[in-house]
Amino acid sequence: MPVGASVVAVGIDVVAVDRFAAALARTPTLARRLFNPDEQVTATGHPRGPASLAARFAVKEAVAKALGVPAGMDWHDCRVVSELSGRPVLQVSQTVADAAAAQGITDWRISVSHDAGIAAAVVLAIGPARTESTP
Amino acid sequence: MPVGASVVAVGIDVVAVDRFAAALARTPTLARRLFNPDEQVTATGHPRGPASLAARFAVKEAVAKALGVPAGMDWHDCRVVSELSGRPVLQVSQTVADAAAAQGITDWRISVSHDAGIAAAVVLAIGPARTESTP
Amino acid sequence: MPVGASVVAVGIDVVAVDRFAAALARTPTLARRLFNPDEQVTATGHPRGPASLAARFAVKEAVAKALGVPAGMDWHDCRVVSELSGRPVLQVSQTVADAAAAQGITDWRISVSHDAGIAAAVVLAIGPARTESTP
Repeated sequence: MPVGASVVAVGIDVVAVDRFAAALARTPTLARRLFNPDEQVTATGHPRGPASLAARFAVKEAVAKALGVPAGMDWHDCRVVSELSGRPVLQVSQTVADAAAAQGITDWRISVSHDAGIAAAVVLAIGPARTESTP
Repeated sequence: MPVGASVVAVGIDVVAVDRFAAALARTPTLARRLFNPDEQVTATGHPRGPASLAARFAVKEAVAKALGVPAGMDWHDCRVVSELSGRPVLQVSQTVADAAAAQGITDWRISVSHDAGIAAAVVLAIGPARTESTP
Repeated sequence: MPVGASVVAVGIDVVAVDRFAAALARTPTLARRLFNPDEQVTATGHPRGPASLAARFAVKEAVAKALGVPAGMDWHDCRVVSELSGRPVLQVSQTVADAAAAQGITDWRISVSHDAGIAAAVVLAIGPARTESTP
């Protein structure tokens, strides 16, 4: 039975908001490639601003790093959703869920911030580190 | 009996030092609202500079995020103190301690940094993740 | 028997890449004092650029913070190596390994990022938090 929980990996990412906004403007398909439709709008249905999108992208890059940048990772399988409180949480599926499962990762903790033109994210990949066969 | 320990939540915050310093200058009561008197001075009794204050504020914001931005949180209940080695540690009381206890958080780990006009903090909220009723 | 695993300490560090590059240029011996020879080149043997070196230095500073800035710490005893996937991992020896062992730290998790002229690193010092004498 697994007891305790441990940090399998950590990821950090820093994104320059203006560079990210310029990339989105330059490549109209980029936003769709990086984000699910519901990630691009706020809880009230308004389009997210560049800093908020950059912070969500920072989460995705931090997740990719925590996983060791798995081949074939689809950015859509790494979804940042906001709880009612506004707290961002991570939902993983398919390519990301598979890579996580292969490394014994069962849960995630994330946090984001932006100020001074910089968006930053930190993620923790959590798993049951050591299992005991207590009957 | 709780065995092991786990990360309940993570928080990150980035603060632009010049914007923070300008806010402190613009609103003379702000420093008092954000910091306890002992947080505003160094171990040797000198006033803390803007970068150091910004880093302490980043800790408080990161704690607020880790807790899901609890209503009624008093910034004074989230105190950053320096150990003799200079290592910052977090002391929580009342509103912050209550919000932490409600989420099973029993301990904190924090770290701060500032350079390039940016202060950053990361905090980990620690708790006994899984409890076992071993008699 | 140790069950579970816990985070003994966290460290974050932010480095302004241009300031770090200027310091390296100003003091020719600095790179050798901070880095092992193999840390200064990429996996393919090319010299690392300033942003990459700054990120590795940020790891070392974050490790120092997580350890409480132990006296006599030699930067060479805190080695950042890249796995084949490119994922950076930490190898500690002598002064850093001793300081870690004294605090019950048995493992590390690290991550780095750079953008917008900033290099950032976060490190987690991991240890078996609570031991049980289950026979």
